[in-house]
Order: sequence, then structure tokens, then C-alpha cells
Amino acid sequence: MSRKIVAAAAQLGPIARTEPRSSAVARMLALMEEAHRRGARLVVFPELALTSFFPRWLIEDEAALDAFYETEMPNADTRPLFDAAARLGIGFYLGFAELLTEGGVKRRFNASILVDPEGRIAGRYRKVHLPGHYHPEDWRRFQHLEKRYFEHGDLGFPVYDFMGGKAGMCLCNDRRWPETFRVLALRGAELVMLGYNTPQHYPQAPEHDHLQDFHNHLSLQAGAYANGCWVIGTAKAGLEEGCELIGGSCIVAPTGEIVAMAQTRGDEVVTAEIDLDRCSELRKNIFNFALHREPGDYGPICEGAEARAAEREAITKGSRFDRD
Amino acid sequence: MSRKIVAAAAQLGPIARTEPRSSAVARMLALMEEAHRRGARLVVFPELALTSFFPRWLIEDEAALDAFYETEMPNADTRPLFDAAARLGIGFYLGFAELLTEGGVKRRFNASILVDPEGRIAGRYRKVHLPGHYHPEDWRRFQHLEKRYFEHGDLGFPVYDFMGGKAGMCLCNDRRWPETFRVLALRGAELVMLGYNTPQHYPQAPEHDHLQDFHNHLSLQAGAYANGCWVIGTAKAGLEEGCELIGGSCIVAPTGEIVAMAQTRGDEVVTAEIDLDRCSELRKNIFNFALHREPGDYGPICEGAEARAAEREAITKGSRFDRD
Repeated sequence: MSRKIVAAAAQLGPIARTEPRSSAVARMLALMEEAHRRGARLVVFPELALTSFFPRWLIEDEAALDAFYETEMPNADTRPLFDAAARLGIGFYLGFAELLTEGGVKRRFNASILVDPEGRIAGRYRKVHLPGHYHPEDWRRFQHLEKRYFEHGDLGFPVYDFMGGKAGMCLCNDRRWPETFRVLALRGAELVMLGYNTPQHYPQAPEHDHLQDFHNHLSLQAGAYANGCWVIGTAKAGLEEGCELIGGSCIVAPTGEIVAMAQTRGDEVVTAEIDLDRCSELRKNIFNFALHREPGDYGPICEGAEARAAEREAITKGSRFDRD
Repeated sequence: MSRKIVAAAAQLGPIARTEPRSSAVARMLALMEEAHRRGARLVVFPELALTSFFPRWLIEDEAALDAFYETEMPNADTRPLFDAAARLGIGFYLGFAELLTEGGVKRRFNASILVDPEGRIAGRYRKVHLPGHYHPEDWRRFQHLEKRYFEHGDLGFPVYDFMGGKAGMCLCNDRRWPETFRVLALRGAELVMLGYNTPQHYPQAPEHDHLQDFHNHLSLQAGAYANGCWVIGTAKAGLEEGCELIGGSCIVAPTGEIVAMAQTRGDEVVTAEIDLDRCSELRKNIFNFALHREPGDYGPICEGAEARAAEREAITKGSRFDRD
């Protein structure tokens, strides 16, 4: 049975701080309709796709901060996306800020969901690699307070049965860590989806600003190739509240080749046919994990989990300063 | 104190099966002299740089097979390289087949050494990721019997103090596994050196033949970028005994940029100034391991070492057939 799916990366241009979710959702619905016209059965939206990238601001008023999060999914604002998915027979990936209240304690995650072509949630992910910093830093024109506004994701890197294959998710900075793709692939992922919000300007090493697109694609292509899996990466792009975000949304084959790529930094759909069976070209041969990987030599990669958890706590409590 | 070094990748063209080591060494000496004229203080030679890539043949006569290995290093054939290193003040990396006899048992490794500018061995490596197969396969025009002719390296991925920095080594197929660079970087490597012999034609998936150079560079560039380290990769290239080997020897900056690349598939030196201090542009910022890695989520990467060791044994004993 063929496992070919036409898939789409649905890039969004900037979302203003005052833009309501209804507007962002309407833009995504238009992209979903366009993807459907091109035969797509799967659409990947960006990270934090419903709002402006709010970690760029220090927001001290709790209600103002909470307003950027979703407390349930679907909700009144996002319901139209689920309805359209069911109507069009299209699955989708959506990034959003998630706020849970457990025993009176608020928990916040940079999250994504996978929705199947019947409009039902088929998978969840909470961002593991949070870039940026916890403490606001005056020298920055824009903050990057992901470590302040989100907890370390508590789901690890799950893989889901999805549309005839195995799919995994990650978010933005996760793609820069080869461990992300490797853990997903070891769990069988044939397709990895991610959204990102990546500033063109990197304040700590501005001499790398011109390399942002290259580093994005290098990470996605290497993740695809070294694991023999499809990768769909979707940007929120363009000049958002004075901060320029890279575009370059793309679909990457298991060979590491970019087979579709956005041409703009605005709302744009790109599509490609992805054949999940192509993963075996790599995974049964050069990257046959069982035959060729040597986990006995990889020990240091998994060391230090407890020290790391303590470090996270120290940063949050303010006894340690962080920089990204 | 500056930690800038002019370094060279010293690519070799093909070595015929009948070509004596004295000829290969003479060619390497000429490349070392040329590197010296260009100011280099470090030269990286290929994998199995002293002979033809013999795993392409089934060699059943033990003495004929043994003739491809070095039983000591330096030896009479390679001594001129060590002498030239000391005379010119140049360190070098050299790949070779290593044969040890321990308690009457022969042990064989695909190995490399690091030699300091005083001509002394400063580091050793034995290839961890052996591609190819153990059992000869008639359908192949060329065999790839690395799993037959070499044991899995027993040194792991060591890192050495070298020329004012920390250096690690790997060999050929190792570069395709992100774990290689990561383990070395976690141990502090600022420079990773490797040699390779990579056929243009990949018999199990010939539809990827045109991607061999891309996959080589993708692996080296991603390894450099994701770990903020310099990478020097050196090919044995060209039409060797009827088998075309890719070239593309290169020096890759910690940003993932290729800053020097071979133009031919023959004997050729390329050089670049490598500043070991540049690693901190990545390692103190976006890839600050202590601040941002999440080893608690990487568990599957290190699982299965015992099963893997048993699998290696099964392949060697012939109860399991392998394919790369």
C-alpha cells in the first residue's frame, strides 16, 4: 500500500502583538484551503502560531502574560482549524503556548499538537530545548525569555502512529540538537514536524547573523539525512514587532535534500509529495541502526541528567544566571 | 595567547594495489612540504593512507591480507613522515590499518594516529563505526569488507591535548553518526580530524550516487556546527583500482562553513587558518551544553550496548548476515 502523502509547510508572516487569534486563525484557514487545493493531506504550521512571539518582551503583569497562552485545545478561537481539518480531510501540526493549572499551580509549556484528518488530537509535544534566558537583560533590544515563560517539556520526544506512518514533533531550537532527531528516529519516526520563530539577529554573536538561514537548513537537512526521515519545518517569518524573523520553511527528504522551500517571508504554502517508504533507502542501508550504531561508545551523551535538572532549578530560582 | 594554526587537508589521489608504501609516503612528504610552504603547522592525511583501500577485495590468503597492515608505528616505511614532521615542525594525522598480536591472537583495527610537531605520537584512535559487511557478496562489483577486516575500535572517542587545544579523531563512516562529534565535543574537542575513502557508487541505493559529495559535506558541516568545533576531513580520492572515490577534502569552521575545499580528485593540499578560540562563538552561546542540553531526554541514544555487542559477535560468527 502506498504511503505517499502530499504535505505542506504553511509559513506565516508576522503576527502583531495586538492581532487577535481570530485573525491568525483566519490566515491559517486560508493557507489550509490553499494546501487542500494543491492536494495536501497534512499541513504544518509554525511554533506559537496563534500570537506574536511574546518571549521577546518582559511581561510582568500575570494576566497580560496569561493572555498569550491556551488553557484548552481546541478552544473557541482554534475550533475552526479543527473543523476545517475534518471537512477537508487534512491533518495538521500547530504550535502554541499551553497553560495548565494543576492543584492551583500554573504550568506553562511551549507546545504543539498533531491533529488527524478527522479533526481529533492525535499527539502532543512540549518543547524540550528552551533557548534564551530566564532573567531579563537590559542590553538586549529584544528579550528571549523562553526559559522564563516555559517549563522544560515533560513528555520527552514521543512518536505517534499517524496517517499510516510514525510521526514525531519538535519545536524551533530543538532542531539544532542532533539528539532530538535521533531519539525520534530510534522510536521509529519517519516524519518529524517542527515550527520555528528564529530571529535574523543573534545578539550574542551578531557575526553569525548572515548564517541564520544556512544554520536552519543545515540542522534540518542533517537531521533528515542522519536519520533517514522526512522533515517539515515551518517558520513564522518577517518583520514582527520590529524583530526580523527568518523564513526558509521547507520540506526535506530522507536524503537531506530540500524538496520544497518558501520564497517569501510572508504567509505562504509550499507542498511536496512525501513517500514514507523512502525512509528505508537510508534506514535499511547506510543508517541501519541495528547493524551499525555503537551505543556502547555514546555514554557521555546521556550523562548528567540530574545535574542538568538542578541547573534548571538554579536558573529559575535566580541563583544562577544564564545566557543563550 | 593566540590559538591560531594554519592547518592543511592533504588529499591523496588513488593508490594502486601494487604501489609500495614508499611511494605513498613520498607523495605524502611532497604534500607535507607544500603545506609547510603555505605556513601549515598541522596536516591531515586520509584514512588507510598507506595502501589501496583493500576492503574492496576478498583476500583469503592471510599473509596477503596481513601485508596491508602496520604492525608498529612508526616503522621503516613511515619513519620519513615522522622525521619530516620534526624537521618542519608540523603535526599530522594519519590513517592506517593496524595489526596487533596479543597472546598469539591477531587483532586488526582501522586506525589513526596524531603526531605532534616534534614527531612523537600524541594520540591514537581505532574506528568505531565500521560500515560494509562481513560476508563477501557476489552481486557486488566491489566488496566493502570493513566488518571482516577490522574489529570495532576499543578506544572509544578519546580527546587529546594537542597544539594548545583539544583534538579528537574519527574515520570515514564515523562522520555520518552525529554521536561521534557529540561525544568528542562533550569531552572538549575543539578540532576533529578524519580521513575517508568514500566510493561514488553506493551499491544498495545507487539512486543516491549523485549525492555522495553532498552527504559528505552535510555530515562534516553539521558535525562542526552542532558542536562548535573545527573539522578537517581528508579524502583518498579518484579512480582507485576501478573504483571511483569522492574527493571534497575540506576544512570546516565551527559555524559549519567550508573555508577550504579541494578542487581535484588527486594529490592536493588545501589550507586555512583555524582559530581554536572561535569555538566559543558557539559553545558559549547557542550551544552552551551546560545551559541548554537535556540529557534526561536522550536515553534511547545510549541504550542497547550489550545487544549491539552480541549482534557484532553474531555477524562475525556467521549466524547473522549483515548489509550496509
